[in-house]
Amino acid sequence: MNEIRLIEVKQDIHADNEALANELRQRLRKEQTFLLNLMSSPGAGKTTTILSTISALGDDLRVGVIEADIDSMVDAEKVAAQGISTIQLRTGGFCHLDASMVKRGLEGLDLDNLDAVIIENVGNLVCPAEFDTGAIKNAMILSVPEGDDKPLKYPLMFSVCDVLLVNKIDYLEFADFDLAALRQRALRLNPTLQIFEISAKTGAGIEAWADWFRREAGAFLSS
Amino acid sequence: MNEIRLIEVKQDIHADNEALANELRQRLRKEQTFLLNLMSSPGAGKTTTILSTISALGDDLRVGVIEADIDSMVDAEKVAAQGISTIQLRTGGFCHLDASMVKRGLEGLDLDNLDAVIIENVGNLVCPAEFDTGAIKNAMILSVPEGDDKPLKYPLMFSVCDVLLVNKIDYLEFADFDLAALRQRALRLNPTLQIFEISAKTGAGIEAWADWFRREAGAFLSS
Repeated sequence: MNEIRLIEVKQDIHADNEALANELRQRLRKEQTFLLNLMSSPGAGKTTTILSTISALGDDLRVGVIEADIDSMVDAEKVAAQGISTIQLRTGGFCHLDASMVKRGLEGLDLDNLDAVIIENVGNLVCPAEFDTGAIKNAMILSVPEGDDKPLKYPLMFSVCDVLLVNKIDYLEFADFDLAALRQRALRLNPTLQIFEISAKTGAGIEAWADWFRREAGAFLSS
Repeated sequence: MNEIRLIEVKQDIHADNEALANELRQRLRKEQTFLLNLMSSPGAGKTTTILSTISALGDDLRVGVIEADIDSMVDAEKVAAQGISTIQLRTGGFCHLDASMVKRGLEGLDLDNLDAVIIENVGNLVCPAEFDTGAIKNAMILSVPEGDDKPLKYPLMFSVCDVLLVNKIDYLEFADFDLAALRQRALRLNPTLQIFEISAKTGAGIEAWADWFRREAGAFLSS
């Protein structure tokens, strides 16, 4: 085995986003809107998960969606086709959403008639983790085909989330994916992380996750 | 279907990276090193593809690897374990590589004893597409479980690449993935894109892709 050399490349983060995010959370409390920020890699199943979740919530909560896309409206069209209030943020190349973008998205929705809003962030395991969107809770999806080593490589994302949805569990029998190892790696970074195993396509596990959503939104709205 | 509102969020790119990338290409020509930049989402199979490619190239080319990772050395360790010259760039949160980082990576390799270097960029379909690394050719992987709609959502990545490797074709029978639709969407963005269907795990299709690599590297080295 060859020796591996290591070079550290330092980062320069501009993050005066925090104040606006906190302001947004105060406003959400006043307006009684629970806001969930959903993040993942491209193709992990964010849109399908949002649709299954809203369907599982039924009449319990009125949920709107903020869709972020770099250049298309594909996902927003899919969500709106289900009769869900949807607003599209086209980021024009931006790799993440920040609180100011989410603020504009919320202004485009009729919050008086919504109890909760789900943000579908840009498909990216890196940048979205660095920017507080003002959401009340943060969730991420890791899909089985991506591999169980992702907490080692994208630790910040696993650290900032309240929930990890392990999606596409219908692929478990075809993939080399060790669920126990994933759990251990994720919980080492974030001991209070809630982990749900789901298949947004088949609906497996969606009820337990929707229960969490119902409970957390309910607690926020009644507080 | 509800009406979808659209908000444009403008981007602010700082890209005085171009000059350094061109300087790097001149140096690669002088030093006779073919440099390939490999990009993809997290978990699309970059490391496995690199290993299969180098194995398929056999003794034809001496290939080194620059591994970019935000926070771990998992991939570099895997590559180095195969006796391949490897250097790890730890980006400390950066979501992409630029030419200055690649320059430092190349300085850490013994280029006199290498004909080609493959860069494994940060797993991200957005940011790496915006930064010229100085590479001679750019390739991307899209894995089947990510879905055939990705050219619509991440158009820049498909536009800047010379090659698209459609990986994990062993998943085709389980996934709703339309190869013809993917090709059409990708070629609409980039009519000269070379597309190879591979499974880095089973080795399917690797020979044709390795032939492309051999040919392009050979043309560059003899020019």
